[in-house]
Amino acid sequence: AAQKLSGGLGSKLCGTSVSVMGANHFFKNEFLIFLKKCFPPADLLPALDGDAKTMTFLQEVVDILLSYIVESFDRNTKVIDFHYPNELLQMNNWALQDEPDSLDDILISCRATLKYAIKTAHPRYFNQLSTGLDMVGLAADWLTSTANTNMFTYEVAPVFVLLEYVTLKKMREIIGWPDGRGDGIFSPGGAISNMYAMLLARFNMFPEVKEKGMSSVPRLAAFTSEHSHFSIKKGAAALGIGTESVICIKADESGKLIPADLERRILEAKQKGFVPFFVSATAGTTVYGAFDPLIAISDICRKDNIWMHVDGAWGGSLLMSRRHRWKLDGVERANSVTWNPHKMMSVPLQCSALLVREEGLMQNCNQMHACYLFQQDKHYDLSYDTGDKALQCGRHVDIFKLWLMWRAKGTIGFEAQIDKCLELSEYLYNKIKDREGYEMVFDGKPQHTNVCFWYLPPGVRYIEDKEEKKKQLHKVAPVIKARMMEYGTTMVSYQPQGDKVNFFRMVISNPAATFEDIDFLIEEIERLGQDL
Amino acid sequence: AAQKLSGGLGSKLCGTSVSVMGANHFFKNEFLIFLKKCFPPADLLPALDGDAKTMTFLQEVVDILLSYIVESFDRNTKVIDFHYPNELLQMNNWALQDEPDSLDDILISCRATLKYAIKTAHPRYFNQLSTGLDMVGLAADWLTSTANTNMFTYEVAPVFVLLEYVTLKKMREIIGWPDGRGDGIFSPGGAISNMYAMLLARFNMFPEVKEKGMSSVPRLAAFTSEHSHFSIKKGAAALGIGTESVICIKADESGKLIPADLERRILEAKQKGFVPFFVSATAGTTVYGAFDPLIAISDICRKDNIWMHVDGAWGGSLLMSRRHRWKLDGVERANSVTWNPHKMMSVPLQCSALLVREEGLMQNCNQMHACYLFQQDKHYDLSYDTGDKALQCGRHVDIFKLWLMWRAKGTIGFEAQIDKCLELSEYLYNKIKDREGYEMVFDGKPQHTNVCFWYLPPGVRYIEDKEEKKKQLHKVAPVIKARMMEYGTTMVSYQPQGDKVNFFRMVISNPAATFEDIDFLIEEIERLGQDL
Repeated sequence: AAQKLSGGLGSKLCGTSVSVMGANHFFKNEFLIFLKKCFPPADLLPALDGDAKTMTFLQEVVDILLSYIVESFDRNTKVIDFHYPNELLQMNNWALQDEPDSLDDILISCRATLKYAIKTAHPRYFNQLSTGLDMVGLAADWLTSTANTNMFTYEVAPVFVLLEYVTLKKMREIIGWPDGRGDGIFSPGGAISNMYAMLLARFNMFPEVKEKGMSSVPRLAAFTSEHSHFSIKKGAAALGIGTESVICIKADESGKLIPADLERRILEAKQKGFVPFFVSATAGTTVYGAFDPLIAISDICRKDNIWMHVDGAWGGSLLMSRRHRWKLDGVERANSVTWNPHKMMSVPLQCSALLVREEGLMQNCNQMHACYLFQQDKHYDLSYDTGDKALQCGRHVDIFKLWLMWRAKGTIGFEAQIDKCLELSEYLYNKIKDREGYEMVFDGKPQHTNVCFWYLPPGVRYIEDKEEKKKQLHKVAPVIKARMMEYGTTMVSYQPQGDKVNFFRMVISNPAATFEDIDFLIEEIERLGQDL
Repeated sequence: AAQKLSGGLGSKLCGTSVSVMGANHFFKNEFLIFLKKCFPPADLLPALDGDAKTMTFLQEVVDILLSYIVESFDRNTKVIDFHYPNELLQMNNWALQDEPDSLDDILISCRATLKYAIKTAHPRYFNQLSTGLDMVGLAADWLTSTANTNMFTYEVAPVFVLLEYVTLKKMREIIGWPDGRGDGIFSPGGAISNMYAMLLARFNMFPEVKEKGMSSVPRLAAFTSEHSHFSIKKGAAALGIGTESVICIKADESGKLIPADLERRILEAKQKGFVPFFVSATAGTTVYGAFDPLIAISDICRKDNIWMHVDGAWGGSLLMSRRHRWKLDGVERANSVTWNPHKMMSVPLQCSALLVREEGLMQNCNQMHACYLFQQDKHYDLSYDTGDKALQCGRHVDIFKLWLMWRAKGTIGFEAQIDKCLELSEYLYNKIKDREGYEMVFDGKPQHTNVCFWYLPPGVRYIEDKEEKKKQLHKVAPVIKARMMEYGTTMVSYQPQGDKVNFFRMVISNPAATFEDIDFLIEEIERLGQDL
């Protein structure tokens, strides 16, 4: 009877017939489930007359989101309602089942998910380089989801392809390339953008590598500061270059690459028979926020004809600020630049751009001419089918949120937002540099919004034995951080670096933060650490 | 006076001071702009008392989106309001400027963007492998944007990390790995998932490649069908293996890899001194929708100890269907599987999973131990900090939309949706296989929803000269496709393949499509092609 019903009534109810076949390890109670699945959410669109029900459902979700947004900006709420992984696994039914949930259950799941999420928009959330939530950026991301398309061709994403074109050009103008000429792409993050750069550098020097692989190429050497991002090594490992071919250049006390060491290590590599092909300078290192000296580095690269990449994933946005862009002087000499608007410019994740000075190189490097996608007999200008220069086939639309935010703020609005974050970090630096119980990790005013410091609680402050003091100090930041998360009051990062024991790294990219939030952070560190 | 004001009133209005410095090529009319930028959208959150204004603005955007959704499902609207790139550039002001737009202008931009977008949810949009718009998936994507966080650590994405864990395990159970054991990751698309697989295969055989690069490794050979996706070659180019090391195996008339040819080519490669390390079988080829014979392939791989990857980006979802999963028999023998829920399961873009049979390998292959992110002295179970096994550093949250849709439909709901799409394609196949003016590109019932066919308009149908007929036929699909886009009535792909001239490739992954929409497509092709 069940079988009959499922082929008869079933097909009428659902617009399909489902024959109920033999038992299977992941399907049970088939008939009951079958009846159930013809009801919600099967009465949402595309169901006939699904409009009203759909509008109601989506509006209910939006109401949940709007409350969450208001709550996120409220300093009286917690940044996080923290639970350990196995606790959190128990706190809700997260399992995937054969049977459908009702729409009411779906709304409950949405609420539960947000209840235990981190409020990254919270004015006291400082944990990582991307913080804050921009309302226009959010609206744009909602629109992007609704448009649900793919960047590979103009055919399926006409507006977004044009906006990517307009925006990349503008970014290249800001870098300082004549008339904004050049190339570029939005990729799924800074690590992938940096990998693209390395790939292009290799192809530029040895185009045969595309067909013949690394066996056709001499042993290559890449150079980057010891403070640079780990994605340079990750990229080298993936591209078959190997991490040992990434030569780490010494940085000075404030984290900037030392050009003389770069010069020396390039020479050394050449003497050992390596071919130097890639230098990645960092504009805004992850931990110290240091800017490598780009002009000096470019002089060295030019001499040896080495591809100069600038990893400005974190610091590239300072190009938008007349007050701070000097820190990237020389960036216009680079062959490629990574710049992540999802960090300092508060564009919702993901939004990372790779900008390339030479036109056409990306296309030559990556194209495979898939004839089912990039047909050459289409009826429009094929230069707008940009997908074949990507490593990806399908590519998410990351452009619209940046473009719409840029329209809403203007260049000058981004500038004001960035300048404000840098002012806040200067305020923090000034506040703690001579304060009792604090020690700065490096001397001098930070160049970016990274403020790196140790807090020495009373119990550590007066330990005389240097090694013992270091040992105890190493334990302080993790304990305070754990307490922050348990109280849910604020979040800030910590890490060791080289021989330096765990220190706090405050970064400010959250446009919601104020001077008072900085004051709060310091009070909170002292409150949570006083007994240590 | 302007300078004074900007440092005084300005800093009070905006909570920051902006010093107006010397002229710069991208800043003009600074003072006026400065005054303007203190107004919208500066009165949205995080502005004090920004709640009401923010709610109003976001609700206005949502209203625009809700109208767009209803319109998208309406067969009386166009799939696309097509314009050529240079026309579209003129149809709106897309430029990025120094000055901010008003919020009203922002709403106008949202409307313009949607006006010229493709309605990928439209029941008659069949252009590419990912079509349709699921309402629960959309709601989940809106929530994801609002939560705006990063997958790298449990610390910043506790719920999403758990949901990824739960979902990957479930997908591995469905593949058939004991107790769902193994590993995996959500990556930014099928091409990247396939690249991960190749990277793992290489590392598994030659772990020293990570440090020493390809110069430490013999010449490798990868094998895949001539019908496989271009990302296999793209991956080989990027990883330094080289496209020439990707050996294309013959496919039979219906697009399935011929195991005997694979065996022969492996032997040949070994004789030439290559080390076979990777076979990528395709479960659902892009054009024909063919499923390679996985059991036979795995027998060959086992004999030579070669990593077997299954690229199920398109066809992997058939594992959810009791009626169709036999097409992937043997998938449980694979070492890795790509499976894109953003294709056949209609999860909003991007949502691609790589599943890996061996635990721990991804971590060993990709980890770089960044001590600022993956601190070893955190207060929770560090196995939930999954970021170091990724190629990416920051990673977008792609899991929630899949998880929430799965909850809303249940496994059985996905099954019904998939079965329905396959029924529709069978309906199309039966309708045209003997219809006058149609010719199938290959014989027999399609295995996936791909239906590949030529439409021969009256003017081509009776040409006697075979070569001339082919030549004329080659021009038909591009013209009909261009007309479809100009009328905006429907969209379907075409391409040549090997020596076969341009043919239509219908794919059905759009849950909104019905039998009537298939009828419409055929009528439309005939209407638009009758004069050719």
